[in-house]
Amino acid sequence: MTVIADRPASAPDLLRVRQDLLDRVERRLDRFTEAERLRWLAINPRAAQPVEAVIDMVGRGGKRLRPIFCLSAFLAAGGDPGAEVAVDASAALELLQAFALIHDDVIDNSALRRGAPTIHVRQAGEHSSQGWQGEARRFGEGVAVLAGDLAFVYADELTFDFPPPARRLWGELRTELIVGQHLDVAVAAEAVVDPRLSRWIAVCKSGRYSIQRPLLLGATLAGRPGLADAFAGYGLALGEAFQLRDDLMDAFGSTEAAGKPAGLDFAEHKMTLLLALAVERDPRIRGLLARDGDAPWDADLIRRVLEETGVRDAVERTIGELVERAVASLAPAGLDPVWSDEFSRLATLVAYRDR
Amino acid sequence: MTVIADRPASAPDLLRVRQDLLDRVERRLDRFTEAERLRWLAINPRAAQPVEAVIDMVGRGGKRLRPIFCLSAFLAAGGDPGAEVAVDASAALELLQAFALIHDDVIDNSALRRGAPTIHVRQAGEHSSQGWQGEARRFGEGVAVLAGDLAFVYADELTFDFPPPARRLWGELRTELIVGQHLDVAVAAEAVVDPRLSRWIAVCKSGRYSIQRPLLLGATLAGRPGLADAFAGYGLALGEAFQLRDDLMDAFGSTEAAGKPAGLDFAEHKMTLLLALAVERDPRIRGLLARDGDAPWDADLIRRVLEETGVRDAVERTIGELVERAVASLAPAGLDPVWSDEFSRLATLVAYRDR
Repeated sequence: MTVIADRPASAPDLLRVRQDLLDRVERRLDRFTEAERLRWLAINPRAAQPVEAVIDMVGRGGKRLRPIFCLSAFLAAGGDPGAEVAVDASAALELLQAFALIHDDVIDNSALRRGAPTIHVRQAGEHSSQGWQGEARRFGEGVAVLAGDLAFVYADELTFDFPPPARRLWGELRTELIVGQHLDVAVAAEAVVDPRLSRWIAVCKSGRYSIQRPLLLGATLAGRPGLADAFAGYGLALGEAFQLRDDLMDAFGSTEAAGKPAGLDFAEHKMTLLLALAVERDPRIRGLLARDGDAPWDADLIRRVLEETGVRDAVERTIGELVERAVASLAPAGLDPVWSDEFSRLATLVAYRDR
Repeated sequence: MTVIADRPASAPDLLRVRQDLLDRVERRLDRFTEAERLRWLAINPRAAQPVEAVIDMVGRGGKRLRPIFCLSAFLAAGGDPGAEVAVDASAALELLQAFALIHDDVIDNSALRRGAPTIHVRQAGEHSSQGWQGEARRFGEGVAVLAGDLAFVYADELTFDFPPPARRLWGELRTELIVGQHLDVAVAAEAVVDPRLSRWIAVCKSGRYSIQRPLLLGATLAGRPGLADAFAGYGLALGEAFQLRDDLMDAFGSTEAAGKPAGLDFAEHKMTLLLALAVERDPRIRGLLARDGDAPWDADLIRRVLEETGVRDAVERTIGELVERAVASLAPAGLDPVWSDEFSRLATLVAYRDR
C-alpha cells in the first residue's frame, strides 16, 4: 500500500500495484453479482435469471480497457492503492459496459458477443425450444433489455461512495454513451453521409466513453482533476484511433478474431468514422453508400474501393498520427516517467489491437 | 416554509404546502429536461431526439402517484418544505417511471400509453413512412430502448445529493422494479400458475415500487427512517389493492378510460394477481388458463367465469379489506391527524381509481 509513497517506484512495482487493483476489480465484480444472484435465487429461480445474464456477460472477460485506464490514471495521479473507491469505479465501468453491450446487441441484432451467442439470441432460442407462449423474438429481446437495465443499476450501486465531482462525471459519461448510441442508430437508418457528425459520434462513444472519461474518473478519484486537460487530449486522439481500428477490423477482419461478427457495420449500413473519412478523401465512395431503399451495401466492392483509392493505407497513417498526438498531449502533465511510458504502451496497444 | 413549525397546521395549510412542492416537481422536471434538450440540440437535431421522447412521456402527465406518496411522507415526517431534496426525489421517481413505462411498452408490445401511441410504435411508423434503411420494428424498439435508458440516467442524476440511506433505498427500489418486470415476462411466457409467485410479483412491483419505497424515501429524506414499519404495512397492503384494481381495469375496463389498451393482460397471457386469486378460489379457472401452445385465451369466457364464480365480487371485497389494513397500519406511527386523514383518502383514491 505504501509502494508509491516511501521510495522511488520502479515500473514493475507500479504495474504490479495496478495488477493487484485489477485483480481486486474482478473479485469485487464476482462478490457483488454473486450476492445478488443468491438473494434473488432465494425468491425464485426465475428472479435470478437477469442476474445470471449479467454475470455471464461480465465473466466472459473482454479487454477491461476502461478499468485499465481508470486505475492507471488513479495511480499516476497519486491515488492511494489501498482505497476501495477506484476498485469500485472500475467495476462500475465494466458493469456499465455490460449494459451497453447487451442493449447494443439487441438494437443491432447482433448474434455473437465475446465469442458466445448474445443474450437475446440465446433467450429467443430457449423460448422456441421450450414452446413457450408469445413471440420468441419479443421474449428474447425483452429479457435482454431487462438484463441490460439490471447491469445499469448494478453499475450505479458501485458509485454510491463517489464524491460529488466524480458523480457528475459518471452522469455525464452515461448520458454521452446513450446519446452517442442513438445518433449511431439514427444516422444508419437515415443513411446520413456527414463526416463531421460521424467524427463527433466517434469522439463521444469511443474517445470520451472508453478512454477520456475513465482516465478523468481515475484522476478525480485520486483528487487531481487538474490532469483533465492532458487526459482529454490523450483520450480524444486515442479514442479516434480506437474507433478507426474498430471500423477497420469490422471491414477487413474476421469474426473469429473479434469474438463478434465482422462486416456488421456494412450489413447495418452504419456510417462509421472509417467511411466518413473515406467519403472526405474520395467523393466516389459517397455514390457507393447513398443508395436508395434497403438494398444491402456491396461489402466486397466497398472493401475493394477502400483499398484501391488508398483510403485504407491513409487511415493506417492517421491512426499512427493520432497515437503520436495522444502521447504528446500527456507531456504537460509531468507524470512519473513510468506512467508516461505506460500510457504510450497502452496507446499502441489500443490502436493496434486485433480484437 | 414555516407553516408546519410555527403554529398548529390546518389540513388546507399542509395540503397547500404539498401542492406547492408538487408544482415545484413539475418545474424541476421541465427545467432539467429542457436544459438537456437544448444542450444536445446544439450538437445535432438527432441528438435531441431521445431527450424529446423522455419529455413527451413525462409531459403527458400520469397520476404522479409516486411523487404524491413521497412528498406526503416527507411532510408527515416533518421534512423541511423549503429543502430541494424531496422535490428532486419526486422528479427522479417520475423519470424512473418514464423509464419503466417506455421499456415495458416495448417488452409488452403495447400500442397506447397515456392516451397516445407508444414511442416504439411512433418511431417504427416514422421509419416506415420515411422509407429509412433497415427494419422499422427494430429501429422503433431500438430508439425506445435508448430513450428509456436516458430517462433512467436522468432519474439518477436527480439523486446525486441523496444522503447514503436514501441512496441505498433508491438502488433497492430500482433493482426490485427490474427483477419484478423480468418475473412478469418469464411467468407469462412459461404460463406459470403459481398464486404465491404472482402475489410476490405484485408486492414487488406495485406495493414496494409504487407505494412503500416512495413513502420510505420521503420519510428517510426527512430524517425519520423510523417510520419504515408503519409505511411498509400501509404500502404493501395498498400495493396489493392497487394491483388488483389494475388487473380488474384491464379485465373489465375500457381502453379509453385507461389511456392504455385494456385486455392486454389476457392477450399477453399474463398471470396477474387477479387470476392467481381466481385460481385459488375456483380450481376450474386453472383449466381455462393452462392451455397448450399459443392459442389465445378466451377473454370473454374468462370474464364470464370470474363473474359467475363470484371471484370478481370477492376481489372487490379483498380490495376493501386491504384498504382497511393499510390505514390501520399507520396508527402506531402517531402521525398528525391531518396526514392520517390524507393517507386514508389516498388509499381510497388508489384502490378505487378508474385509470
